[in-house]
Amino acid sequence: MVLGLGTGSTAAFVVARIAELLNSGQLKDIVGIPTSKRTQEQAASLGIPLSILDNYPRLDLAIDGADEVDPDLNLVKGRGGALLREKMVEAASDKFVVVVDDTKLVEGLGGSGLAMPVEVVQFCWKYNLVRLEGLFKEEGVEAKLRLDGDGKPYVTDNSNYIVDLYFKTPIKDALAAGKEISAFEGVVEHGLFLDMASTVIVAGKEGVEVKTK
Amino acid sequence: MVLGLGTGSTAAFVVARIAELLNSGQLKDIVGIPTSKRTQEQAASLGIPLSILDNYPRLDLAIDGADEVDPDLNLVKGRGGALLREKMVEAASDKFVVVVDDTKLVEGLGGSGLAMPVEVVQFCWKYNLVRLEGLFKEEGVEAKLRLDGDGKPYVTDNSNYIVDLYFKTPIKDALAAGKEISAFEGVVEHGLFLDMASTVIVAGKEGVEVKTK
Repeated sequence: MVLGLGTGSTAAFVVARIAELLNSGQLKDIVGIPTSKRTQEQAASLGIPLSILDNYPRLDLAIDGADEVDPDLNLVKGRGGALLREKMVEAASDKFVVVVDDTKLVEGLGGSGLAMPVEVVQFCWKYNLVRLEGLFKEEGVEAKLRLDGDGKPYVTDNSNYIVDLYFKTPIKDALAAGKEISAFEGVVEHGLFLDMASTVIVAGKEGVEVKTK
Repeated sequence: MVLGLGTGSTAAFVVARIAELLNSGQLKDIVGIPTSKRTQEQAASLGIPLSILDNYPRLDLAIDGADEVDPDLNLVKGRGGALLREKMVEAASDKFVVVVDDTKLVEGLGGSGLAMPVEVVQFCWKYNLVRLEGLFKEEGVEAKLRLDGDGKPYVTDNSNYIVDLYFKTPIKDALAAGKEISAFEGVVEHGLFLDMASTVIVAGKEGVEVKTK
């Protein structure tokens, strides 16, 4: 089985558990496709056999966390900064299972008020930040260049910057928004993962709920 | 006037001529927005005042060459490798004037049999090369990673790679093709410049022809 390995705090538990199952012999014949350098390092250190999309252009399954999940199982992802590689790998997967706790559920994407990331080339990032802000005037968006711990621009695995969008009200039409964002020259990817998740597993106080499309 | 400065052999003549006119006082109050590091260096060395899109998000005019021009003034650009910055600057220009010789005229884009470039992130470039090849089976496309003089992958100003597409027959529907290419995760930009040129100046043996939309 070719298995996409997500990035972030939830995905790190999944990767650790897969390594346990492999090492105990309960799981066999797994090739992992990591979605970030971080996950690659974790999975390699735990002994999970790894490869890349170049060698495995179709995956059987990908498992990852998400930052927001709406009632149609559309997602916001990428607060961890790995949105491009996550989207490449997860879009190539026959099944994409998302694992979240119930604080991630929203009525509409952007509704958490937390960051929706857009990966942009470094060249003229301010120009694109201003254009992104203009696109979502109605939603009262605030756009900020993501900084690292030292106050310098955060640089993605692909040498790009991230503009984080903070919405006052949820995005009205996420499909249209995704297309409009992508149409900007210099935008490399955005954190709207639309019509991609096949299953979302939600952990709450009352137990676990499985939502499928 | 805010003026976009193109990249390539033809654009280099334009930049040199603008510098001449500025130095002789025939041209005044020009701010140049270069479309590549190369053009930036040339223009700076000639004393043209320069800025960037961050400071001038709208341009009055951009002037550049092109690799192919079809009867509707759609273009292939980017054989020089500067397609992303060219597209960012030229899409932000009120008028975009293209200067070519008549060997660049084609009946349909891709028709020259020469490269149509696609800028892709380095991560899993082979995966995207194979996907691009699959997209244009009907046009008998061959896709090649662009190499530099040393046989290493050519790296763009934005730290990406370029996959060059060589078509046996012209692209049937360039608008649809552009959308399909852009939809691939990991594609940063492509060399189809559609509905962007306002004027094309064509130099031929019989003289100069000006085509406008």
